[in-house]
Amino acid sequence: MVAMIDKLEAGQIVSRARFVKGTTWRSLADAIDKPVVWTTAALLGQHALTSDDAWRIGEILELGDDVVEAMQVQPYRGSGTQQIPTDPTIYRFYEALDVYGPALKELIHEEFGDGIMSAINFNVEIERREDPKGDRVVVTLDGKFLDYNW
Amino acid sequence: MVAMIDKLEAGQIVSRARFVKGTTWRSLADAIDKPVVWTTAALLGQHALTSDDAWRIGEILELGDDVVEAMQVQPYRGSGTQQIPTDPTIYRFYEALDVYGPALKELIHEEFGDGIMSAINFNVEIERREDPKGDRVVVTLDGKFLDYNW
Amino acid sequence: MVAMIDKLEAGQIVSRARFVKGTTWRSLADAIDKPVVWTTAALLGQHALTSDDAWRIGEILELGDDVVEAMQVQPYRGSGTQQIPTDPTIYRFYEALDVYGPALKELIHEEFGDGIMSAINFNVEIERREDPKGDRVVVTLDGKFLDYNW
Amino acid sequence: MVAMIDKLEAGQIVSRARFVKGTTWRSLADAIDKPVVWTTAALLGQHALTSDDAWRIGEILELGDDVVEAMQVQPYRGSGTQQIPTDPTIYRFYEALDVYGPALKELIHEEFGDGIMSAINFNVEIERREDPKGDRVVVTLDGKFLDYNW
Amino acid sequence: MVAMIDKLEAGQIVSRARFVKGTTWRSLADAIDKPVVWTTAALLGQHALTSDDAWRIGEILELGDDVVEAMQVQPYRGSGTQQIPTDPTIYRFYEALDVYGPALKELIHEEFGDGIMSAINFNVEIERREDPKGDRVVVTLDGKFLDYNW
Amino acid sequence: MVAMIDKLEAGQIVSRARFVKGTTWRSLADAIDKPVVWTTAALLGQHALTSDDAWRIGEILELGDDVVEAMQVQPYRGSGTQQIPTDPTIYRFYEALDVYGPALKELIHEEFGDGIMSAINFNVEIERREDPKGDRVVVTLDGKFLDYNW
Amino acid sequence: MVAMIDKLEAGQIVSRARFVKGTTWRSLADAIDKPVVWTTAALLGQHALTSDDAWRIGEILELGDDVVEAMQVQPYRGSGTQQIPTDPTIYRFYEALDVYGPALKELIHEEFGDGIMSAINFNVEIERREDPKGDRVVVTLDGKFLDYNW
Amino acid sequence: MVAMIDKLEAGQIVSRARFVKGTTWRSLADAIDKPVVWTTAALLGQHALTSDDAWRIGEILELGDDVVEAMQVQPYRGSGTQQIPTDPTIYRFYEALDVYGPALKELIHEEFGDGIMSAINFNVEIERREDPKGDRVVVTLDGKFLDYNW
Amino acid sequence: MVAMIDKLEAGQIVSRARFVKGTTWRSLADAIDKPVVWTTAALLGQHALTSDDAWRIGEILELGDDVVEAMQVQPYRGSGTQQIPTDPTIYRFYEALDVYGPALKELIHEEFGDGIMSAINFNVEIERREDPKGDRVVVTLDGKFLDYNW
Amino acid sequence: MVAMIDKLEAGQIVSRARFVKGTTWRSLADAIDKPVVWTTAALLGQHALTSDDAWRIGEILELGDDVVEAMQVQPYRGSGTQQIPTDPTIYRFYEALDVYGPALKELIHEEFGDGIMSAINFNVEIERREDPKGDRVVVTLDGKFLDYNW
Repeated sequence: MVAMIDKLEAGQIVSRARFVKGTTWRSLADAIDKPVVWTTAALLGQHALTSDDAWRIGEILELGDDVVEAMQVQPYRGSGTQQIPTDPTIYRFYEALDVYGPALKELIHEEFGDGIMSAINFNVEIERREDPKGDRVVVTLDGKFLDYNW
Repeated sequence: MVAMIDKLEAGQIVSRARFVKGTTWRSLADAIDKPVVWTTAALLGQHALTSDDAWRIGEILELGDDVVEAMQVQPYRGSGTQQIPTDPTIYRFYEALDVYGPALKELIHEEFGDGIMSAINFNVEIERREDPKGDRVVVTLDGKFLDYNW
Repeated sequence: MVAMIDKLEAGQIVSRARFVKGTTWRSLADAIDKPVVWTTAALLGQHALTSDDAWRIGEILELGDDVVEAMQVQPYRGSGTQQIPTDPTIYRFYEALDVYGPALKELIHEEFGDGIMSAINFNVEIERREDPKGDRVVVTLDGKFLDYNW
Repeated sequence: MVAMIDKLEAGQIVSRARFVKGTTWRSLADAIDKPVVWTTAALLGQHALTSDDAWRIGEILELGDDVVEAMQVQPYRGSGTQQIPTDPTIYRFYEALDVYGPALKELIHEEFGDGIMSAINFNVEIERREDPKGDRVVVTLDGKFLDYNW
Repeated sequence: MVAMIDKLEAGQIVSRARFVKGTTWRSLADAIDKPVVWTTAALLGQHALTSDDAWRIGEILELGDDVVEAMQVQPYRGSGTQQIPTDPTIYRFYEALDVYGPALKELIHEEFGDGIMSAINFNVEIERREDPKGDRVVVTLDGKFLDYNW
Repeated sequence: MVAMIDKLEAGQIVSRARFVKGTTWRSLADAIDKPVVWTTAALLGQHALTSDDAWRIGEILELGDDVVEAMQVQPYRGSGTQQIPTDPTIYRFYEALDVYGPALKELIHEEFGDGIMSAINFNVEIERREDPKGDRVVVTLDGKFLDYNW
Repeated sequence: MVAMIDKLEAGQIVSRARFVKGTTWRSLADAIDKPVVWTTAALLGQHALTSDDAWRIGEILELGDDVVEAMQVQPYRGSGTQQIPTDPTIYRFYEALDVYGPALKELIHEEFGDGIMSAINFNVEIERREDPKGDRVVVTLDGKFLDYNW
Repeated sequence: MVAMIDKLEAGQIVSRARFVKGTTWRSLADAIDKPVVWTTAALLGQHALTSDDAWRIGEILELGDDVVEAMQVQPYRGSGTQQIPTDPTIYRFYEALDVYGPALKELIHEEFGDGIMSAINFNVEIERREDPKGDRVVVTLDGKFLDYNW
Repeated sequence: MVAMIDKLEAGQIVSRARFVKGTTWRSLADAIDKPVVWTTAALLGQHALTSDDAWRIGEILELGDDVVEAMQVQPYRGSGTQQIPTDPTIYRFYEALDVYGPALKELIHEEFGDGIMSAINFNVEIERREDPKGDRVVVTLDGKFLDYNW
Repeated sequence: MVAMIDKLEAGQIVSRARFVKGTTWRSLADAIDKPVVWTTAALLGQHALTSDDAWRIGEILELGDDVVEAMQVQPYRGSGTQQIPTDPTIYRFYEALDVYGPALKELIHEEFGDGIMSAINFNVEIERREDPKGDRVVVTLDGKFLDYNW
């Protein structure tokens, strides 16, 4: 029987191997020709890679077969429990939602009617925008509108 | 002494008055010449309006003086407790963060070094992008990068 | 200004008025020509009714204008917090999900690939199936498959 | 003494072995002639298999004796704590219940009187329904009605 | 429109009226010819009374029409959230379950096979057993066995 | 130094050994001449066995010395946190308490005055009662009344 | 029908009336000839007073009849949920238990065998002990030992 | 580098070694000439022992060097999270506080003014008081009064 | 009897009256000659004012007698439950503690030995420090060291 | 592939090695010429060290390469969940915030306008201030003011 490792453990091993080798997430994304946020999320355990892509990453980072296999498995997504994390870099996104979430809801309904922005037919981009007063992080969430369609 | 009403109650009254009159959030934002996400958040109780802006909104929606006053008060921001809401339109944003939050963290650090995207020196925009396969909700989070600067 | 009442309070008033008059949910659904689960959920505060439908229900149940207005307002859906209710009739559904949820996930992925059953482009039906060993409640959840489509 | 492994660990091993061998849940269900949702749930640790069925599965997936034994043990069902999971494929079912649960309760009482849909004398089916606007996941919950019978 | 009162409020009013008049729960149960635990639970809001029984109790305790009506309404059972109460008289039952629950589970399975004791087709009795070392509270839980019957 | 194992681990080993050998809890209880609920609870880690009884059980189930030792240790009782478990066989008892707990409290006070049913000077019995409409699980909780005695 | 007030509200009214009149808890305890901790707890809603004692307190503090009545009602004890309070004067007791609770458990078992200190057949005293390095609060918890007596 | 073991693990090893050897906590306290509650708490991981005392205990119980070292380390005190434990012997203390905590607060303020009983400049004693109606556990909490001293 | 209002409600009334009159917290502190953080905390309900100070504040802000009385009452301090607030201005302090708390603990023990910084014999100051790169908030926590003194 | 260890484990190993060698945090800070609170927090896992600094610490404390590597990795900051710790030395800081947090918020807004004290562009110092009545712990939090700047 194959030795087992779950996707979150695999994600930690990838993350550490990447750090030790000095490889960037962006270069890993380029190597498999996928968007960078998607690739990073996938390697951290939130998406399944195709077999080819998993072996390609395994080769670059010299990962074991168990890690390569784990990358291809269908994920249980998210953190597992409905709790808000403490890391400040991540928390700021939650805080922004806590403050602006109801406003976004009102404006989605005003513009589109009753429904939601899909988090499945959905993508995220992140970029740096230079600014003389200090560069800015710009994150774009882009999801299909789904109307309540009984 | 003036009768008291808190900012969340004021937000509900504004929201209902707007519905009854058939006024849009966007037209309220135009009336006080502020961005629409900011204005909606402010009217729901997450920012303080200037006295002039509060009276202008009060006039348009025919609100009582207590509501107008509450709009000018400094807010206690957020929902009050660290809990994730159930409304599907709002929840999808939390789900997206739960899935992509750690990837965004990795990429902020890769691009900017150790630090965060500010949620204070920060703004949000929402727009509709037409798409033949179904229109899309596009939300842009734009915050200044702050580095850990001891 | 109009007196305010929220959708959950309106739902309780509808529910009680219906009880007092001996009207069924099914007859209310028929009166506005909508599916019965949708109508019941809407009247309990989980969907917005059109103005015509709201006035039609108001007439049948002799409801106040504030209740009729509240029925038309866009809902904040769900119970508000991510907690599991205690009522046995409702709890059994949660228990079934707790036991069979991971199996449903596996089988959705096996049949459709990576994605979800939409809870927005979605409907529910409930019917009674006669059975000599005791009649059965049959609930059908029917949602569009959405694939992870970056 | 026999080495010990619990049913959830056994479920993870089955799940991985199945992935590695490219076997479907459906073919495993066929091999033991049981419904597919029941079989998947059982192999994930929510039902006990008979000794024959456990050995049959063990043979197909080349599992160790400890896994085969664990499959036959009486389960502690559910996730262990009353918490709502984050995986989007599973979460959508919880969201649907949070929105439609009270309506289902009302309609069960309207049709059957005071009581519940059993989650024990109960089964679940899942099927794909083709639809030109996108195929649909159809899940049927079918449980005996039990009345409050003091 | 009738003034509204919910079943828990009605339960508190009944409880206080009973205290003021010096009436026992047992005599109320006798008045409507129902078991005493059932009656007490019903009057506290956990079961619906028939119209006749509700009016009979209303007469004895001189309750308002709103209370009498609330007694007849279908309940949302339980405390609403999955939390353990602090009152020592109630807590001891939870403590006993926390200590002996897994043992009861094992013995139900040993004696009956896989299944549960129904909490719906179920009744409870309480009695005093005299004992020279101090009288004892004897509570009997009696529920139909339901087997997992797919 | 002795190898260590805690009482809950010991309980799982006992439970598995019993399953593998096909021994019943009842026969284990008979072997040490103790009530069956007490014995089952004790072997699952909720009571301490005497040295003689522990060795007797160890002999029957061919357990290691570390397990036999753990059985004699004073327990930390309960599940450790004030949370309600999900296993349906156990949950039904909690649900019954949630629904009937306040009624039991009222009736204890009506019959005995202010005080509690002890969960320490306390025992539990479980038996099967045959019934043509389906056999019943009968659980009897029997505890000394303790009055608030300052 | 009598106006209703619950025991916690009654406790707040007593507390405030006492403050306004400048009466001490100790003098109230003396007036009804009961221990001071018991009396204070009772007046805050944790014990029932006899009718005579309730009227005596009502007379001293010039309380309404509804408050006097509420004092005589059987309490739901404790704070209602298993949460630790924040007030520093109360929190220190919880902290002491968190640190020394397991040690007290070990020593109770060493001295008395398996069992508990009753919190029902139980009393508490508080006194001031003068000390040149700063006076001390001395709290004595005194409860009957109850052994696990099946 | 030394093998590591934390203070709670060390506490479990001490506790088991003590059980196996039949040594009492009291005799361990005598061996290092410290109060018995302090010593038991310290050995369970809530205080640091001096090097001499740790080696003395290590000798008596024949503990490994890693355990002896862990005993000398500064503790993280308490259980780690603000949760109430389920063990009945410990829970009764929490219940007593839940019921009498507010009364103790009132009486501390009445006697000493605004402030707290320190849980740092603080000690606990436990003793057995013989009583013909059943012996009693007497626990004395003795802490310096600290006034709010800005 | 005086109408009742609790300290938190009184705090909200003070806060609003101050806003309406355009009075600063600092001027209120000066009026009663107390430190500004202490005064603000007291007026928000966390300390008791002397009768003179309460009447002085009442005069300045034209408050009702019930508010003035509530200011003099002994507080239940803190927010009531052990939960972390969402307001960003307050949350940043909690985040800083979550990140630096264990380091502060280590350094207190390194410098002072085993013990704590008192939060009772304790004060807080806040000041603005000008800085060309952006002014800074400087908060100083100053508490007496208390050693574990058994 | 390198053996993996996470930053919190690394922090525990550092902490223990430091204890065993009798090295102070202050001397470690001096060795890498960084502020002492920053260094202690970093070594406990809350900041990343440069490669040089990590190797310098590794040399002093004779740490393994895996520990040295872990020190350089970007942290997930904080304790991971939004829970308040129980250790008294740390808890006192949380208590102080619970009592004085809203006052600090009011005064930040009064002095600086709407915004926050940054916890990123932020530092902490701790010092001992001698005092004849008992030495004091003085902690200074110093963060840049950030205004809400849309």
